[in-house]
Amino acid sequence: MPDMLIDTAGPQFLSFEGGEGAGKSTQIKLLSAWLSDNGVKHIVTREPGGAPGAELIRDLLLKGDTDRWQPMTEALLMTASRAEHVARTIKPALEAGQWVLCDRFFDSTIAYQGYARGLGGAEMRALQTLALGTFQPDLTFVFDIAVEKGLLRARGREGERVSKSEMEDRFERMDISFHKALHAAFLKFVEEEPGRCVRIDADGSADEVQKRLRAALTSRLAK
Amino acid sequence: MPDMLIDTAGPQFLSFEGGEGAGKSTQIKLLSAWLSDNGVKHIVTREPGGAPGAELIRDLLLKGDTDRWQPMTEALLMTASRAEHVARTIKPALEAGQWVLCDRFFDSTIAYQGYARGLGGAEMRALQTLALGTFQPDLTFVFDIAVEKGLLRARGREGERVSKSEMEDRFERMDISFHKALHAAFLKFVEEEPGRCVRIDADGSADEVQKRLRAALTSRLAK
Repeated sequence: MPDMLIDTAGPQFLSFEGGEGAGKSTQIKLLSAWLSDNGVKHIVTREPGGAPGAELIRDLLLKGDTDRWQPMTEALLMTASRAEHVARTIKPALEAGQWVLCDRFFDSTIAYQGYARGLGGAEMRALQTLALGTFQPDLTFVFDIAVEKGLLRARGREGERVSKSEMEDRFERMDISFHKALHAAFLKFVEEEPGRCVRIDADGSADEVQKRLRAALTSRLAK
Repeated sequence: MPDMLIDTAGPQFLSFEGGEGAGKSTQIKLLSAWLSDNGVKHIVTREPGGAPGAELIRDLLLKGDTDRWQPMTEALLMTASRAEHVARTIKPALEAGQWVLCDRFFDSTIAYQGYARGLGGAEMRALQTLALGTFQPDLTFVFDIAVEKGLLRARGREGERVSKSEMEDRFERMDISFHKALHAAFLKFVEEEPGRCVRIDADGSADEVQKRLRAALTSRLAK
C-alpha cells in the first residue's frame, strides 16, 4: 500500500545526491510525477539556489573559471546559499505540509569541497552544523553509478533533452581522480549514516532506477 | 627609538576594529602616512572586500534592505569574502615583506553577527577557524568610544570630508541596543585576548588618538 504510506507520513524532506551522470534530475522528475498522481503536495528545488538570495549567490558561483574561487570560498558561498534556501524555501514548505524534493543538499558540499577538493569531510560537516544546526534531510538518496559510466552518460547529454547546468559542466571538466574521490565520499555517507542515507543502484534504464527509488522510499516510510 | 623598532619587526598584520564613529578610517590614514615616513612598506585594505572575488561578495552584501540577508547568511558571506581577501591580498603582501593595515577583520564578524545579531560569539569564532585555520592578525587595535558619542560622530559625518560607506550606513540605522552589544563585544575581545587585542581610547582629537595608537604599536613591537 505505498499510497497510504505516503499519505500518512507527514511532510518529508528528501535530498538526492550522486556524482555526474547518475541520473538525479530524471529520477526527481519521475518521482515528482508519481507523488502528484498520489495526491502528495510537494515542491521540487535544487542547490545551489532555490530562493531569491540563494540564486544571487549561485550566479556568483557559476561565473568564471573553475579556479576562480578557492575551495574554501566555494564551500562558504554554497553554505551561505543553503542557509537562505532552508530559511526561505525548504522550512516554509515543510511547515505548510508540503514535501520537499531537493536536487543536492549539504552532502554535496561535504563530498565536493570536503573530500574531492581536500578541505576535510569533518570540517565541512562542522560547517553545515554551524550554519543549519541540527536541520537535515529526512532521507537522502545516493545514486550510485561507476565513475566512468557516469561521466560517459553526462558527456553524452549534449544531444539529449536533459539540459546540463553550467555548474555540472564545470565539475565535469575536473579530472577522473576528482570524480573517484567524490564517488567514494557519497558511498561513505551511506555507510556512516544508514538511517538517513539510502544507496540507489543507478545502473539501468530510467524506469528500472525509478522502480528502485520508489521501493526504497516506501520501505523507509513504513519503518 | 620607534623607527628602529618598526624597521626590525618584520611584516605585521594589523587590524583595526570598533563601533560606529570610533574614527578607525582617519586613524588608519594617519598611521599609514607615519609608516611611509619611516620607510615601512605596507598596504591599506578593508573588509568586506579587498580582493577581486571579495569585492563581488561585498556588492552582494551591500545591496538591498538591512534584512535582506539572514544574520547567518551575512556571516557566511562575510567569511567567504575574508577567505579570498586573506589568500589573494593579505598573505601575498606579508610574504612580500609588506605590512598590512586592515580596516575590520574577523573580530567584526564575531561582534556584529555573533554578539549583536545573536548567532553566538563562540560559533562565529569557530567559523573563522574553519575558514582560516590559525591565521589571525598580529595585533588588533580596538578603538573604544562611548556608544552615544560614537553614533553622534558617525551621524555628523555627512557634512565632513570623511565619507561613509553604505555598509556603515546600514549598521548605523540599527537601534541603540545593537550598538551597545557591539561595544561590549569588542571590549570582551580585549579582555579575552590581551596578547593580540589592544584597546585604544578613541575619545579625543584625531591627533591625540593617533599619538596613543603609535605609542601602543611601538610598545607592543618592543615586546
